[in-house]
Amino acid sequence: MSQRTVYFLSDQTGVTAETLGHSLITQFDSQDFRQVTLPFIDSEDKAREAVRKINQVAESSATKPIIFSTLVQDDFRAIVRTANGLHLDIFDVFLEPLEKELNQKSTQTAGRAHGMSDMASYMRRIEATNFALANDDGAITRNYEMADVILMGVSRSGKTPTCLYLALQYGVFAANFPLTDEEFESGTLPDVVLKQRHKMFGLTIKPGRLQQIRKERRALGRYSSAQQVRFELREAEKIFQRFSIPYVDTTEFSIEEIASRILESTGVDRRVRP
Amino acid sequence: MSQRTVYFLSDQTGVTAETLGHSLITQFDSQDFRQVTLPFIDSEDKAREAVRKINQVAESSATKPIIFSTLVQDDFRAIVRTANGLHLDIFDVFLEPLEKELNQKSTQTAGRAHGMSDMASYMRRIEATNFALANDDGAITRNYEMADVILMGVSRSGKTPTCLYLALQYGVFAANFPLTDEEFESGTLPDVVLKQRHKMFGLTIKPGRLQQIRKERRALGRYSSAQQVRFELREAEKIFQRFSIPYVDTTEFSIEEIASRILESTGVDRRVRP
Repeated sequence: MSQRTVYFLSDQTGVTAETLGHSLITQFDSQDFRQVTLPFIDSEDKAREAVRKINQVAESSATKPIIFSTLVQDDFRAIVRTANGLHLDIFDVFLEPLEKELNQKSTQTAGRAHGMSDMASYMRRIEATNFALANDDGAITRNYEMADVILMGVSRSGKTPTCLYLALQYGVFAANFPLTDEEFESGTLPDVVLKQRHKMFGLTIKPGRLQQIRKERRALGRYSSAQQVRFELREAEKIFQRFSIPYVDTTEFSIEEIASRILESTGVDRRVRP
Repeated sequence: MSQRTVYFLSDQTGVTAETLGHSLITQFDSQDFRQVTLPFIDSEDKAREAVRKINQVAESSATKPIIFSTLVQDDFRAIVRTANGLHLDIFDVFLEPLEKELNQKSTQTAGRAHGMSDMASYMRRIEATNFALANDDGAITRNYEMADVILMGVSRSGKTPTCLYLALQYGVFAANFPLTDEEFESGTLPDVVLKQRHKMFGLTIKPGRLQQIRKERRALGRYSSAQQVRFELREAEKIFQRFSIPYVDTTEFSIEEIASRILESTGVDRRVRP
């Protein structure tokens, strides 16, 4: 099958066009897609340049390019529309019904979605990221009082990336508490954690998968042995059950899925919207 | 103006519906939106439950809810469509033209976009996140050879969140090098950095904004004084210019924008697609 080029066009970052387009093209699994993002199309010249690039590819391929675009301004959209390809533009399709329903013309202002229009959101995300970093290590005293959620699990169960994703995507303050021999031996949790019991959420993972992940970090030794991995996961689940901590098996989940399930289960609000 | 409830419906995380919907509703700035995500609608029961929730709000409000949905399966979509609201569904609109152009039926499989369908992508994002964390601190020796890009700037210019975003969103290996008195005094950069000169990218920021950010961290002292902030930023820009390092002023930019501009300027490929 010949390769199909997919373009993501945007007057801003291209994140919306990429997210939208990716959701759709992943529904066609036997295709060979080449994905190209053309961001910051914020002038007529850049719109024409994008058309030139797309037409060049269209001429030299057996297949028509697919163009996902999120251009806010009518005039740039009109230029891009002359490109040779299948055009799928969310503003073309959805803006009119929204304007009608809201009984208001859209502002046609670029850069609203991922721009700095909302300084408070930006600061919140930065603060949440710093919070996740400061509360990621076992050694220091943590600000569990400030946390929206406290993720718990054994080493490499996915706590850190999930905390960072919750911070960057949703501005949620996520701390993390690693379960180690100390907890497994005592069968309990430190008081400082237990005080925030309602915020706790556990991550578990299948032993085979955890072993694979740990081996990439340290190939030999107890840390990545089948026996140790099984022991830790079993003890961690006992703790989750003992303290009625909701938990999720992350083996089959992406970071987005883990994060969404945590928000759904805990009822923690998204502090900012992506 | 009365509040308008906006729903993001998904059989998966809701990230696509949120991103799409947010791009559109931010075009209507005088409206008061209440945003609700209903993720993981993966059964007829859950679809009916969503309809019930939406209709309840519709009945008690003066305005119709707006429903952004990304439900892949026809049967769940049919149930959700009975809810009282303005329906904007990307699969309704875009799937048919795509099927026609690709000459292939879509798989109608939920969870392709942010699912674990691609284990390699997941691992890449986790590795990139770990790389960003390991290469974030000035004290340790860095793996600059492995980096796709090395961000440079003074303290609190946005390096860390940007590195983490590049890792989580795009699987890009981003290291970071903080510019400190050592570089300002010598006017040069360490050899280990200079060897990777082609990977370097600078972040700068307006003095007033940096001072504001630093004051939140440490209110008093040299670190957040107007004089020190101005001095550091001036010296950092001198270094960027001396070594022909491309740089961007992040003052007006969101994390998404900074990341997109770095990828555009450096030509670094997105290793994974969101």
